[in-house]
Amino acid sequence: MKNLNRIKIIVFAVFIFTANCCSSKGKEEAKTSKPNFIVIFADDMGYGDVGVYGNPTIKTPNLDRIATEGQKWTNFYVAASVCTPSRAGLLTGRLPIRSGMCNEKPHVLTIRSKGGLPQKEITIAQALKGAGYQTACIGKWHLGHLPQFLPTAHGFDYYYGIPYSNDMNFDKDKAGDKTLFEAKKSPEIEYFDVPLMRNTEIIERPVEQSTITKRYTYEAINFIEENKEKPFFLYLAHAIPHVPLYRSAEFEGISLRGKFGDVIEELDWSVGRILSTLKENGLDKNTLVVFTSDNGPWLIYDEQGGSAGLLRGGKGETFEGGMREPAIFWGEGLVKPGVVMDMGTTMDLLPTFCKLADVKLRNDRIYDGYDISPVLSGEGKSKRDMVFYYRGTDVFAIRKGAYKAHFYTQSGYGKDERKLQDPPLLYNLEIDPSEKYNIADQYPEIIQEITQILKEHQSSIVPVENQLDKF
Amino acid sequence: MKNLNRIKIIVFAVFIFTANCCSSKGKEEAKTSKPNFIVIFADDMGYGDVGVYGNPTIKTPNLDRIATEGQKWTNFYVAASVCTPSRAGLLTGRLPIRSGMCNEKPHVLTIRSKGGLPQKEITIAQALKGAGYQTACIGKWHLGHLPQFLPTAHGFDYYYGIPYSNDMNFDKDKAGDKTLFEAKKSPEIEYFDVPLMRNTEIIERPVEQSTITKRYTYEAINFIEENKEKPFFLYLAHAIPHVPLYRSAEFEGISLRGKFGDVIEELDWSVGRILSTLKENGLDKNTLVVFTSDNGPWLIYDEQGGSAGLLRGGKGETFEGGMREPAIFWGEGLVKPGVVMDMGTTMDLLPTFCKLADVKLRNDRIYDGYDISPVLSGEGKSKRDMVFYYRGTDVFAIRKGAYKAHFYTQSGYGKDERKLQDPPLLYNLEIDPSEKYNIADQYPEIIQEITQILKEHQSSIVPVENQLDKF
Repeated sequence: MKNLNRIKIIVFAVFIFTANCCSSKGKEEAKTSKPNFIVIFADDMGYGDVGVYGNPTIKTPNLDRIATEGQKWTNFYVAASVCTPSRAGLLTGRLPIRSGMCNEKPHVLTIRSKGGLPQKEITIAQALKGAGYQTACIGKWHLGHLPQFLPTAHGFDYYYGIPYSNDMNFDKDKAGDKTLFEAKKSPEIEYFDVPLMRNTEIIERPVEQSTITKRYTYEAINFIEENKEKPFFLYLAHAIPHVPLYRSAEFEGISLRGKFGDVIEELDWSVGRILSTLKENGLDKNTLVVFTSDNGPWLIYDEQGGSAGLLRGGKGETFEGGMREPAIFWGEGLVKPGVVMDMGTTMDLLPTFCKLADVKLRNDRIYDGYDISPVLSGEGKSKRDMVFYYRGTDVFAIRKGAYKAHFYTQSGYGKDERKLQDPPLLYNLEIDPSEKYNIADQYPEIIQEITQILKEHQSSIVPVENQLDKF
Repeated sequence: MKNLNRIKIIVFAVFIFTANCCSSKGKEEAKTSKPNFIVIFADDMGYGDVGVYGNPTIKTPNLDRIATEGQKWTNFYVAASVCTPSRAGLLTGRLPIRSGMCNEKPHVLTIRSKGGLPQKEITIAQALKGAGYQTACIGKWHLGHLPQFLPTAHGFDYYYGIPYSNDMNFDKDKAGDKTLFEAKKSPEIEYFDVPLMRNTEIIERPVEQSTITKRYTYEAINFIEENKEKPFFLYLAHAIPHVPLYRSAEFEGISLRGKFGDVIEELDWSVGRILSTLKENGLDKNTLVVFTSDNGPWLIYDEQGGSAGLLRGGKGETFEGGMREPAIFWGEGLVKPGVVMDMGTTMDLLPTFCKLADVKLRNDRIYDGYDISPVLSGEGKSKRDMVFYYRGTDVFAIRKGAYKAHFYTQSGYGKDERKLQDPPLLYNLEIDPSEKYNIADQYPEIIQEITQILKEHQSSIVPVENQLDKF
């Protein structure tokens, strides 16, 4: 009886307290103020490199936790299986073919490139700026390192990072007898003469890469804390786990998975710090956090590359391992927890953020992304039922519903030429996620349908200047 | 100020309430009464067939949840990569070679077998009987179907299930033109003349397999509810996802993953029902639930077989995919939540349950299991640093710490002969869980050490009568 009374008191008190706390402040605030957006983007992390996506020896408690508290997507894609076009797709909400940001060879921007993301493209940052957002790009850019292409020329108020990949500007003299491949596997800082920039200035060269994850993290925390009164968009594009692998001293040797695991565990630490910063600043009820990677694991680097888990292939390829990524959406009150098997892509982020921020999409261009906010809130299904798998400027494969047809195949970094598949290979990705059982002969009508989709898609592409072959 | 006072009241009230509730009742009860044990054992489920182990299209919300509330083990092994020896290992805590329960061909007991688990072996059920436990085996047995080998002759108070595999006793006449392989992929009930037994009586033949998962589940629930006042051990060994695949009508077509997915999703439903039964009966604070499978996926059945995720190989093989399994330990107050990367095996269950039930192990035999209760409680590390990978009566591979040496390799169900590996293949399973990069030439001293372990192990094996070649 005594206990029962106590329970009653508690229940009543808790009710008053939570009612007060949530409705008068939390809820109204969430309704009236625009949500913040944080995109945490890994580099070359595979589908199987996160604990909750099946990795047995890499510890990712923070990613595992936000995947449980938020949404773990299992059919989430990037716009291309290599860096530059993947990032162009994410930031513009459009297939890279539409901005001229993809190419057969070189397949990414190099240090000699004169091209970059064209001015007429509108990035997520630019779209949100008009709605009063503060914007920062921290980390890898790789959409053009000449001044007119830098983040600050594309809607970001602030930039801090390496403008391209951490394995570029290879200094052969410093590396001695080592080939580029060997140098990437056992690197010294000076092998890669890579700059660190703040806005448009180079502040360090070559970058001391071992502390780069930590420095990106603290820059991100500063940006969050400085902008807690305004809505903000933070694009935190880590340099890792792209080779050469570097991590801070505290993370050296901590992972069972070796150096690659150390690097992912530091990345996971970084995710934890971002999340705790949100909580400490009362921003956790009104911030949407997205975690994913630019493309699959770089398998030619063996144990220094990641794992695509049960998916076939990796970086550079149009098999699933190259383009399907771990993707976690987190946001208290914004994201209904669960596992989401709907299709999504990085190109869906721009329309989704715009919807949530009440920003209208421009109608002078084609967007390849869909607003997935109904999926995040648990109120609807994804409108996406197709994925285009580009390699360079060509469509190698198309997924329609459960079915994926491969028109061409080619290894990511081998010496083989592209192989025409006629009839196309056909896989049911829902039943056969590892693309093992070609069922082309059983479904000629599906191949016909997807071939028709290919034709229509190709006729929708307006030729633009290729930015990756300008030197 | 008003709010602050409210908070104080709540904090104080909650303190009194929880202090009362946990210490006077819960804790003491947990200390004085012996814990219940439930082992839920799947059949041919692979490392990659559960959501939280990386499957993209099979929904396993209950397994995912208990993996988060409990411990998700990522280096957990079975005693063999096929059914009979794997189950003998689990129930006796000993390598199947010690009980004569493994063999090259046939590698499991068949319907013509005259052998079975010898009487002198002590099962988990027998060990716990002495401490006042009620025991039940519900589901697949496969340790001998003659009366003297049945569960009721091995310490189980109750048996309900199919005494061997669900694909046995193939009726060629009924299957018409279909081969056994074809019949398993598109089965009719009468193709497999399999009995359902209650204790020692056959109560149905052939079993209506489509409802078997549901019936096993309700039998398990009944057993739990009938024995809630006594400590109990429930061994719930499902028939699925072993081919032929069957599921209840409500689960037909519900999974994106096809029939195989339907089957796993019914299994996940079953896990949910067991857990909710524990809660409804106030047993959730004093019951240890273990979920795992007998061996890896049967890959030759293509989309009707499972996936080993990022692991190499499957059922029948001594690569990781054959013998490393999803393994989840759940128990409020008994299991400290987290991801466990320590090594464990099904043979560790017997010593662990005995420890927790305060039962002394007999000292007249060799046990191959370790008490892992300190790992479960979060108070210690696993003592296990070795795994023996038997195929039939031979050791094909040994793991010592991170390193695994393969002395022989052979495909699970191909026509190839065993291949002697000299020098042995060597993999670092922590860094290279997919067994891709043979590093034998870099570590001759480790190969030497593991070869020595092999010799010592072999000399410890006392020859016993082989139970699997008795007809």
